[in-house]
Amino acid sequence: MIGSKRISGIIIVCFLLAQFVFAGLTLAQEGPLASWNEGSAKSAILEFVAETTKPASPDYVAPEERIAVFDNDGTLWSEKPLYFQVMMAIDQLQAMATETPEWAENQPFKAALEEDFGAVAASGGKGLMKLLSATQSGSSDRTFTREVEAWLDTARHPRFGKTFTELVYQPMLELLDYLRTHGFSTWIVSGSGIDFMRAWTEEAYGIPPEQVIGSQVELDYVMDGGTPSFQRRPGNFFFNDGPNKAIAIKRHMGRQPVIAFGNSDGDLEMLEWTTAGEGPRLGVLIHHTDAKREWAYDRKSDIGRLDKALDAAPEHDWLVVDMAADWARIYPWQTAP
Amino acid sequence: MIGSKRISGIIIVCFLLAQFVFAGLTLAQEGPLASWNEGSAKSAILEFVAETTKPASPDYVAPEERIAVFDNDGTLWSEKPLYFQVMMAIDQLQAMATETPEWAENQPFKAALEEDFGAVAASGGKGLMKLLSATQSGSSDRTFTREVEAWLDTARHPRFGKTFTELVYQPMLELLDYLRTHGFSTWIVSGSGIDFMRAWTEEAYGIPPEQVIGSQVELDYVMDGGTPSFQRRPGNFFFNDGPNKAIAIKRHMGRQPVIAFGNSDGDLEMLEWTTAGEGPRLGVLIHHTDAKREWAYDRKSDIGRLDKALDAAPEHDWLVVDMAADWARIYPWQTAP
Repeated sequence: MIGSKRISGIIIVCFLLAQFVFAGLTLAQEGPLASWNEGSAKSAILEFVAETTKPASPDYVAPEERIAVFDNDGTLWSEKPLYFQVMMAIDQLQAMATETPEWAENQPFKAALEEDFGAVAASGGKGLMKLLSATQSGSSDRTFTREVEAWLDTARHPRFGKTFTELVYQPMLELLDYLRTHGFSTWIVSGSGIDFMRAWTEEAYGIPPEQVIGSQVELDYVMDGGTPSFQRRPGNFFFNDGPNKAIAIKRHMGRQPVIAFGNSDGDLEMLEWTTAGEGPRLGVLIHHTDAKREWAYDRKSDIGRLDKALDAAPEHDWLVVDMAADWARIYPWQTAP
Repeated sequence: MIGSKRISGIIIVCFLLAQFVFAGLTLAQEGPLASWNEGSAKSAILEFVAETTKPASPDYVAPEERIAVFDNDGTLWSEKPLYFQVMMAIDQLQAMATETPEWAENQPFKAALEEDFGAVAASGGKGLMKLLSATQSGSSDRTFTREVEAWLDTARHPRFGKTFTELVYQPMLELLDYLRTHGFSTWIVSGSGIDFMRAWTEEAYGIPPEQVIGSQVELDYVMDGGTPSFQRRPGNFFFNDGPNKAIAIKRHMGRQPVIAFGNSDGDLEMLEWTTAGEGPRLGVLIHHTDAKREWAYDRKSDIGRLDKALDAAPEHDWLVVDMAADWARIYPWQTAP
């Protein structure tokens, strides 16, 4: 005869077992990279990580060499209508416009004040640099970081009405996590300013300041009443784009990455260097093909132009991710399909 | 009655216990920082590490903020008669001298070829830079790394007859290990070349390339038959000394360290910034006071001059390590006392 105590025991065990099985099923359903649709891009990434991290694999990569580098604008978050650091500069210009009446007559300031984003984009790298120099130099590093934080807290994207850090790509957040779980260090290598990014990349992506590489202004070390600070000087010390991205990786880490993600011609040399040489290597281009959920652009865009790198992809065996086809969602706040 | 099996058992247990006690005693004798003599310097370091790593301590520092920066020449290894990277340049000059007869007539080349180290040191930063530019630029990054490795394998220090990497300081090796065991990351911030150091710092100190910051030459990213490489251009891109050391830390890691070790005026701003501001902070100067086992020099030395920083030490509460008194041994191959 079975006593009631024993029956309770059996029920508890069944309950625990059921939970365990259910948890297993949930895990299997979600799996890694849940916001990536099944397809060749997702499989290629999963396979690369599996092959480089299994100790018995011929393509095994030692943990200290597991380095993955990511462009930021257009690769980890959106970059339209203008790189978001420039969107901040435009907000700052508008707040300062009455003190500087000559801006109303001079390009690209006039276009910026009128929020003619297309004209600002067409002013090119030199135009954008003028906007950034006029607004984001002359202060200390601490003041600038506070300004970035305040802007990110309050500013809204003109198309989506969301804060700018809500425009990070959900599939890339999952990928960053997945890579770190498999012992990869994840680095940003961006044309945007290093101090602009360091104000928020740890919270948004889990990427700490020492793994952020970007463009840099001149800095002066100054003592102010016994407190040292770094004054941001107008003008550029290092513009982190094109071949300079490869050089900056070399300078900052002294190692050759094994994974590189980018989305524009400015990432060409970073992908080229990462995927050159011995051993397993993964180069990926994010192709903006989704006008409905994000934007569709490549060869003719002033922002994030993808032309030469798209031509170079087949010869280097770079993976081209089709955002419309490969990503089940774009932003964290969009419902999954 | 006690059987022989039981007796064997008791003997084995006693034997194991004895081993355990003996191991404990050995550990207690050696302790951490075994090559540091008991005294205020050793106690201050041990106490700082204890107070910043105990979760219950009011001075607790979170693991990601446990950053310790170290000058290299004169702080982690010796720097006499000349910074060791310059010693390499002199060996290279001698090998190249027949191709460049004009060196025999021009300073500081003439002094270098004659191994008049004092005259080379007196030629100052500009003189040393000429020697480095003439010998260590124009090649690719890979070629230069191989040259450094070959030189370190074969060259011998003129006073000790040892390889140069045998002239690292045993007490500092123990300290680096001790800090890492307590969750600190250990970084080099040196006036020597970043690529010169990265060739050997991992093996010598356990410091990986991405935690080495140094002076930098201009680099060109070039494609050579499908293989990308970085060509070293003559001239300096960034001279990592004085205020630039603070700026370089800011650029590379975007964090303020909590521990800084240096030995010369070139480390003043690095210590000043590290020890400024809130929370527990440790600044340390290694004072070269041991002419017998190493060298004794400070205010008047052309190499590793320690003058202003020595004056600044009391006001900032920097610890001054007296090498003769505080270090039981200098080099790993010297017998312990």
